[in-house]
Amino acid sequence: MQIRALVWGENVHEQTNKTVADIYPDGMHEAIAAALRSDGITAETATLQQPEHGLTKERLAQTDVLLWWGHAAHGDVADEIVERVAEHVHAGMGLILLHSAHFAKIFKRLMGTPCNLTWREAGERERLWVTSRNHPIAAGLPDHFTLENEEMYGEPFGVPEPLETVFISWFQGGEVFRSGLTYKRGAGNVFYFRPGHETYPTYHDANVQTVLRNAVRWAHNPAPRIKDVNDAPNVPVESALEPITERGPRLHRDGEDGFR
Amino acid sequence: MQIRALVWGENVHEQTNKTVADIYPDGMHEAIAAALRSDGITAETATLQQPEHGLTKERLAQTDVLLWWGHAAHGDVADEIVERVAEHVHAGMGLILLHSAHFAKIFKRLMGTPCNLTWREAGERERLWVTSRNHPIAAGLPDHFTLENEEMYGEPFGVPEPLETVFISWFQGGEVFRSGLTYKRGAGNVFYFRPGHETYPTYHDANVQTVLRNAVRWAHNPAPRIKDVNDAPNVPVESALEPITERGPRLHRDGEDGFR
Amino acid sequence: MQIRALVWGENVHEQTNKTVADIYPDGMHEAIAAALRSDGITAETATLQQPEHGLTKERLAQTDVLLWWGHAAHGDVADEIVERVAEHVHAGMGLILLHSAHFAKIFKRLMGTPCNLTWREAGERERLWVTSRNHPIAAGLPDHFTLENEEMYGEPFGVPEPLETVFISWFQGGEVFRSGLTYKRGAGNVFYFRPGHETYPTYHDANVQTVLRNAVRWAHNPAPRIKDVNDAPNVPVESALEPITERGPRLHRDGEDGFR
Amino acid sequence: MQIRALVWGENVHEQTNKTVADIYPDGMHEAIAAALRSDGITAETATLQQPEHGLTKERLAQTDVLLWWGHAAHGDVADEIVERVAEHVHAGMGLILLHSAHFAKIFKRLMGTPCNLTWREAGERERLWVTSRNHPIAAGLPDHFTLENEEMYGEPFGVPEPLETVFISWFQGGEVFRSGLTYKRGAGNVFYFRPGHETYPTYHDANVQTVLRNAVRWAHNPAPRIKDVNDAPNVPVESALEPITERGPRLHRDGEDGFR
Repeated sequence: MQIRALVWGENVHEQTNKTVADIYPDGMHEAIAAALRSDGITAETATLQQPEHGLTKERLAQTDVLLWWGHAAHGDVADEIVERVAEHVHAGMGLILLHSAHFAKIFKRLMGTPCNLTWREAGERERLWVTSRNHPIAAGLPDHFTLENEEMYGEPFGVPEPLETVFISWFQGGEVFRSGLTYKRGAGNVFYFRPGHETYPTYHDANVQTVLRNAVRWAHNPAPRIKDVNDAPNVPVESALEPITERGPRLHRDGEDGFR
Repeated sequence: MQIRALVWGENVHEQTNKTVADIYPDGMHEAIAAALRSDGITAETATLQQPEHGLTKERLAQTDVLLWWGHAAHGDVADEIVERVAEHVHAGMGLILLHSAHFAKIFKRLMGTPCNLTWREAGERERLWVTSRNHPIAAGLPDHFTLENEEMYGEPFGVPEPLETVFISWFQGGEVFRSGLTYKRGAGNVFYFRPGHETYPTYHDANVQTVLRNAVRWAHNPAPRIKDVNDAPNVPVESALEPITERGPRLHRDGEDGFR
Repeated sequence: MQIRALVWGENVHEQTNKTVADIYPDGMHEAIAAALRSDGITAETATLQQPEHGLTKERLAQTDVLLWWGHAAHGDVADEIVERVAEHVHAGMGLILLHSAHFAKIFKRLMGTPCNLTWREAGERERLWVTSRNHPIAAGLPDHFTLENEEMYGEPFGVPEPLETVFISWFQGGEVFRSGLTYKRGAGNVFYFRPGHETYPTYHDANVQTVLRNAVRWAHNPAPRIKDVNDAPNVPVESALEPITERGPRLHRDGEDGFR
Repeated sequence: MQIRALVWGENVHEQTNKTVADIYPDGMHEAIAAALRSDGITAETATLQQPEHGLTKERLAQTDVLLWWGHAAHGDVADEIVERVAEHVHAGMGLILLHSAHFAKIFKRLMGTPCNLTWREAGERERLWVTSRNHPIAAGLPDHFTLENEEMYGEPFGVPEPLETVFISWFQGGEVFRSGLTYKRGAGNVFYFRPGHETYPTYHDANVQTVLRNAVRWAHNPAPRIKDVNDAPNVPVESALEPITERGPRLHRDGEDGFR
């Protein structure tokens, strides 16, 4: 079964900044999608500028894993689309947040925390260390790999404790950062991966591309999407799995919905 | 040092339902606050109907641990107040969610998930089992205790994997539920505790009261509240902890704020 | 790629107890292995009575996922074999512990805790609830399923907090139990699954068989086994990734091994 | 209530290495104990060379939190004493492992993993970053602090995923390390803290001393020690919490112990 990945790109700096346009002439989203395409993964792209940001209900229903890169225009993403993506994650769609997407509405929505950090744009050296040996997302990687020029992100990183810490970054200027973190939100697998500042050729790096492909395979949940993902069904007394008799006062009438 | 607890009550059914009013003549929030008061804990109350729902900035700044009971009127809580409470939790305020607060805006905000479940209002027997021995929240409790009449909540419970599962409930009708779950969100400790349907005298139960007092002590973070909890400070090259030289192209000018 | 499962059975009660022999005429291990065989999984068996308990170095090197059922003879398993299995788990072999294997030496070795519980052998009803929706180990299962006759295991279960709680059991006599728990130990995935008392036909149950197949697929780590899994390599100054100069006093001479 | 800490020191290099003896003239254990003594904590010491390594049953019964520093003589610690300490941790005693105690028998016993890492003794700079803001163990600390000369420990660190990652270290030579990790084993809180190579004055550092005092307070579990910590009690049918009738075949006779 082919995994259907969809790469969402903000697609702003590619249009306005010559450095970014030179590194990613077809846009960062297209470079990422090209890196994903392989035996087992198909990859399409969507951008902020498209109707519904390219994330229609039909499109999301056909997406196994969504990758998200955004930076300058987090605020331009419609709240309605953020909720739609969140529901698909809850229902089982995988989601991979890239670099500056730590401040994407969808990441903050799913984490419930500020997702803040410290930063410095100096083209310094970053070295990523694998902290969970043989984790599927680290498959085929050495114990560490280096990106010669990257933006620095530093701890404390304002996220919940993850299920697993897969990568930690060392920065030349003296900081560290938890660069690969796994979460589950509803039935959806979520992975945050730090590298990917737009003025450096990070998504052309072979190790980074390996992480992206691994992460898509890890995040893919082959189970059917959960329907009615916010449902809170009443189980009437007469349908109880064990025979019980109703006792005491009640608030709700038969068949009445719960409050929410 | 006294811990300053604040019990927030929706205070709706106490006014409209004779059963609830008979069990909790001063309101559920007052019963809960009375149960908290002890050596080491002071407790006040606030309700939905007060200006700013009783949760002004000044009040929250003076609160170490907030307890939240809501059910019929989740939708009436102003979004602005929910964000204010979330920021205080991120900054270090403890938060305890009680029973039907699984659907409170603030809980969904902090969890990032649907927080849904199955339910049945039949006055059936609930038995809570301690699953983390000697956890501070279970201090002084036996391995299990029983509530003769409670509403049933059943799995799957739509929340993220907790830091620790402290209680699991057995229900007479055949369901189970993770009844005591710990989380950390930013610098704030968060605890969800299941029992407490308004038509039963749950908050008069001695074991439940023990859990509430324990939970307040556990959730209390004595460290000073974090200021500017959403800040993402730039660390300029010249202030780097290790000497580095700027390299490569930049997106941001000196002193410019990051995108968000 | 076929996953190579190996089912280890203690094979004692099948030889000494007519009830068990009637339910599992070829032994529990053979029944479990037969349930595993499917597209994608091959399954062999090994037993306590074989030389080296059937767990030679060559055999383990050819095993992707080991399943372990033991009860009456935990003490007869040689410590040397337990260590061998532990090393293979650390190196990446999956391990699935079944029912009374909660007291197997290998489980206690990997958990570091007593792994104790309460129990009752009364053929009572057990109902397993899925607590992690769409978890790969729960694929294809309904939200709950029932085993009409099982031994009861009750909380508190003396194990570390898991990575994820996948199943929780309800028992007719009033107890609950965390019945499906995931761990990672070194590079190896570990799953504990509760049902499977030998006097009941549990391993003939279709839902249980689904869990076993799912668990094997989940536990399988396709990465090459880690070599020298206990190594703690010295990184000499001259091989440091960043240029550093040795400073201050030293304990170790050049090339000397670390203490252990 | 005073917390009773006990600092266990291997006390080998203090006797054989002039550098170590000069930095810690009364032994590392005495320096650590002195750093702990404060309002609320009393601290005594024990060493390898004492009868039963100074860890008699009576002594452990009077200990709330045990701190452990060992390096050259892990192998000389008697297995019986390791088991005794493990049982006390399971029963609720706190345990803090310092630096090279990553290879102490008691740490490997409780983790179930190799606990290995990479290392380099070059007196290089280590900077510890707080990754869990306002965690009690980080109380009163800045977001980062530096030790000018330390031994390097590098990832991957062969331990299970912790409950929380409190500190991550940056090393001058290019490595990172999870330097502060929390676990719970049975009823006992366990904390691993990385710094503390014997040829550097690490335990005289004010920030390190703050961590040690914080960690003792965090690890302290005021609940009474659990008795019979390995018990697996049978719950007879006639004592079941809910009335049940025995059904089906049994393995055990009335009153018979379980297998183990």
